Amino acid sequence: MENDPDGPPAMRVTAAKLQARLGQLPEFDGGVDVTTNDIPALMAARIAGANVLLACRKLNIREAKAASEALAWTQVITAGVETYLPDLPADVKLTNASGVHAEKGAEFILTSVLMLNYRIPQFVADKDDRRWRPSFGGTVEGKVVTLLGVGGIGRAAVPLLLARGVTAPVSECLSVADLDMVLPRTDILVSTLPLTAETAGLVDRRRLAALPSGAGIVVVGRAGVFDYAALSDGLRSGDLGGAVLDVFTEEPLPPDSALWTCPRLVITPHCSLDDHTSYIDRCLDVFCDNVSRFRAGVRLLNLVDPARGY
Amino acid sequence: MENDPDGPPAMRVTAAKLQARLGQLPEFDGGVDVTTNDIPALMAARIAGANVLLACRKLNIREAKAASEALAWTQVITAGVETYLPDLPADVKLTNASGVHAEKGAEFILTSVLMLNYRIPQFVADKDDRRWRPSFGGTVEGKVVTLLGVGGIGRAAVPLLLARGVTAPVSECLSVADLDMVLPRTDILVSTLPLTAETAGLVDRRRLAALPSGAGIVVVGRAGVFDYAALSDGLRSGDLGGAVLDVFTEEPLPPDSALWTCPRLVITPHCSLDDHTSYIDRCLDVFCDNVSRFRAGVRLLNLVDPARGY
Repeated sequence: MENDPDGPPAMRVTAAKLQARLGQLPEFDGGVDVTTNDIPALMAARIAGANVLLACRKLNIREAKAASEALAWTQVITAGVETYLPDLPADVKLTNASGVHAEKGAEFILTSVLMLNYRIPQFVADKDDRRWRPSFGGTVEGKVVTLLGVGGIGRAAVPLLLARGVTAPVSECLSVADLDMVLPRTDILVSTLPLTAETAGLVDRRRLAALPSGAGIVVVGRAGVFDYAALSDGLRSGDLGGAVLDVFTEEPLPPDSALWTCPRLVITPHCSLDDHTSYIDRCLDVFCDNVSRFRAGVRLLNLVDPARGY
Repeated sequence: MENDPDGPPAMRVTAAKLQARLGQLPEFDGGVDVTTNDIPALMAARIAGANVLLACRKLNIREAKAASEALAWTQVITAGVETYLPDLPADVKLTNASGVHAEKGAEFILTSVLMLNYRIPQFVADKDDRRWRPSFGGTVEGKVVTLLGVGGIGRAAVPLLLARGVTAPVSECLSVADLDMVLPRTDILVSTLPLTAETAGLVDRRRLAALPSGAGIVVVGRAGVFDYAALSDGLRSGDLGGAVLDVFTEEPLPPDSALWTCPRLVITPHCSLDDHTSYIDRCLDVFCDNVSRFRAGVRLLNLVDPARGY
């Protein structure tokens, strides 16, 4: 198990904790050999002989495989895996943390959709200008929320949105042609999409322009799915009513980014899906379940398909 | 029926609309005499002989009674009635629009509570400073939301908050002593309280200081219940984590108000409860129901108790 020495303490897994969690599995009676490593330079020495790698930091799986020929499976603690895929050996399975973010991610999507319906980004901009401009719109009931991406987070958001009376919030398998049809009647567009060859640049300037005037945008998946320059232009002109962005192509967002001064834009610093109060425990739930599956030789949960990219 | 000539068109009731709505009541077969007036100076002439007044603008009920000795009941379209009470003759019943705001008000309270849990006011302040400071807190589940005021809006908010797993969101009859006990464990304090002799200044500097560090505040009732100067001090120092304020002692908030530059404060311009897409229709629901009750001589809905002030 590889920890990130620069990461927050809440995101590290101690040897004792991992041993205790694995020890609860009925098929182990204390007989699992656990090695943890907090010093990236020592990975090659520490990993030798390991069958399974739990990666709590960004690392190169090809290098891990070179250090341990027996390595057959790597569990990571992120949902997005685009940084791992270029160096994934064909004979190493990769599983991600999809679903671990689901509860907080779904509630954050609800929060963002409600904020956009209640024009919070506009009122924040009006406050900067000391402008008192009420708007007396209705509740979110009947509004059209189009949800791009139906992984763990997107699926978990659906019942929360339906409970508020939102219309047609999601398309299970929205083709690009479907997307072009649904954009003109979308009040709020929410993306949980991963970054893959198919999704990169999907919501470009032309598609943003196809949204009705005053539409809102929520991005909690990957930023590269959108043209943020076009999105920013839409917010500045007021064609877009507001946006809540949790993800950016460069993070932390550089101090000289024009997004910091973009009106009608709420920036949350890539934290709206990760709940450090429970995150690692939930990752260990997935990992321990997968350890049992790995031993039993059955299909792992959250198995990434390298061809799809998620 | 008195309209407000300066109000938005969506908030006016035409004679035809009122006649049509009253005509649907089974006990009238077209036999109700409706007079509407859009010119305040003409009220005295137009109201002569009326038993019932539907007031869609702020007016002096004592003057109306002087113009029509038969006036026995006035229905207003606001929930707060503090501006009507000083000039309410003892023999004129007053009914308000409590409950008409309930659906939107409840959803806006949910929105505000979620925004505070997800630290949106802090992230808005960080954006002004171009600061990237993630915080990885949990969902709102288990947080303590204390709801002051359990009229139509407060009651409607309870199930929405409970559905998100909030703890102890409301006290049906919170005494001042209870309030002092509950403040130190309150994560988010929400007020829908009307302004009365009992509530004026209730949440003063001392009570705000009793909240735990980082607590949030939502005010959608009346501003005079709070000490906004103390609230603003708490936001500036960071003792309070954030606030969403929809109401102010002076509205529109004057351009020189220090609240415009107060960090961690989201200002919504007294519009978060009023839904102009449905507001007047719902007021007419209450009014028509009350017309039937008035004719039948039974207790009116939303009857204001002048001694309580709501």
